Amino acid sequence: MQLIAETYDVLHRGLGLSNDELHDVFSEWNTGDLRSYLIEITTAIFAERDPESGGAVLDLILDEAAQKGTGKWTSQNALDVGAPIPTINAAVESRIISALKTERVTAGRVLHGPSPRYDGPRQRLIDAARDALHASKITSYAQGLGLLRLASHEYGYEMRPGVIAKIWRAGCIIRARFLNRIAEAYAEDPGLVALVVAPYFRDAVAGAQESWRRVVAVSATSGIPTPAFSSSLAYYDGLRAPRLPAALVQGQRDFFGAHTYKRVDQPGVFHTLWSGDRSEIETTPSSH
Amino acid sequence: MQLIAETYDVLHRGLGLSNDELHDVFSEWNTGDLRSYLIEITTAIFAERDPESGGAVLDLILDEAAQKGTGKWTSQNALDVGAPIPTINAAVESRIISALKTERVTAGRVLHGPSPRYDGPRQRLIDAARDALHASKITSYAQGLGLLRLASHEYGYEMRPGVIAKIWRAGCIIRARFLNRIAEAYAEDPGLVALVVAPYFRDAVAGAQESWRRVVAVSATSGIPTPAFSSSLAYYDGLRAPRLPAALVQGQRDFFGAHTYKRVDQPGVFHTLWSGDRSEIETTPSSH
Repeated sequence: MQLIAETYDVLHRGLGLSNDELHDVFSEWNTGDLRSYLIEITTAIFAERDPESGGAVLDLILDEAAQKGTGKWTSQNALDVGAPIPTINAAVESRIISALKTERVTAGRVLHGPSPRYDGPRQRLIDAARDALHASKITSYAQGLGLLRLASHEYGYEMRPGVIAKIWRAGCIIRARFLNRIAEAYAEDPGLVALVVAPYFRDAVAGAQESWRRVVAVSATSGIPTPAFSSSLAYYDGLRAPRLPAALVQGQRDFFGAHTYKRVDQPGVFHTLWSGDRSEIETTPSSH
Repeated sequence: MQLIAETYDVLHRGLGLSNDELHDVFSEWNTGDLRSYLIEITTAIFAERDPESGGAVLDLILDEAAQKGTGKWTSQNALDVGAPIPTINAAVESRIISALKTERVTAGRVLHGPSPRYDGPRQRLIDAARDALHASKITSYAQGLGLLRLASHEYGYEMRPGVIAKIWRAGCIIRARFLNRIAEAYAEDPGLVALVVAPYFRDAVAGAQESWRRVVAVSATSGIPTPAFSSSLAYYDGLRAPRLPAALVQGQRDFFGAHTYKRVDQPGVFHTLWSGDRSEIETTPSSH
């Protein structure tokens, strides 16, 4: 839902698409890879008119999103089981920010930023937004299924991701064409370490990623917040990075708190006497 | 720490700066607005040599960050009190991703992406990274102080942000030159709704934001994960947005779950009969 909302923001504030134009764009998307219940109802929302004013109902809705608490619970639980779900977190955070209306009105009066209007080729950004939505959606499902895998292990649930995809497909708000692909991916490789690694999804993201990166870059430059798009991309790039700068964080932790670190070239746990004679000592694992 | 790590990644993998060059860049930064304990120890880490090989200790540290749990606790608590802290969440998530080494090695073998190497003007990106770090740091402190404000209200702590800044200044790993500015900002306006709104910080971010946006855009394009930079920017742009796409999320929630919405033009709580005759009815607040 947050990914669709960010797509709407990019196309509406960035490109100036009207509700009627958005209706047409989303109608077309609903015939392709993005086909899903949420795209379908979003298409209908763009078309909905207020009987009194004749204007779009969407334009009359206050921009404060509420929540029942399932998103919050998911984010908190993912932290307990050590599963990275940055896209889902970004969606929960976006609702929280939207609800801080007083702060937002005060901040909006004094904070500067660029004009959200995008001057590049129109159809190219529309197509890029579709690809960004598709790639982000895949990474978001990859995160959700990763959480279920770790939670299943932690709590002994013995869940099977392929079966879960079929249950979702049978009836819930995320029922989507591509859930069949998820079921197929796990049928082929029940031990899949991450959904994005499965050939179909790997190729889908590879094909979409240039557009995906362009949408994140354009949004950052134009001042349109796209936290779920950018968190999805950072997750993908974090997963495929040959070496993360987490090594520096471990260095910092060892420097100020003697929290120790592991080495790339030998087993064991080490601590450098950074502020002493700066030699390295092997140590037993820290209890901190 | 995560913001500094992302800065390192952009300058090291993106620009190809060596540890010696990074040491010089950070030494210089530590004489300006960024002056802090963490920049100081990071500068020292870049210079630290392994006595045996003579290579940089940093390059021998495994890129798996550990945690004691305070970050996790902060993220979980912020969700309880409804405070948005996306930058802090991104830092916690980055440690979690770094620790999933098996998944990362498997994913790294099959996932495609661009070369991280940046071909633009070198000094310009170094300066932009400094500004991005400064602006992101300000937004990150704004989020942390926002969390303390809401938690103080929720739990009756009666905390004073200016005093907290002075306590941090007196001795903890975040002791930094700009904590004095935070104390001054709250002395001037004890009811400050967000730190970024205070004149000094508002101007600092306004001056840094073009660089900040460029670093986020370049990272997205080059495939270098910068979740804390991009989350900070999305927080800033979310706070100043005249209207968030949260309105669409409310429309979706009302469509599939009759969760109701508020209107921009009149008080009350409303529900549209989206799939019925599609008229709107006023309703009492939903218990969901």
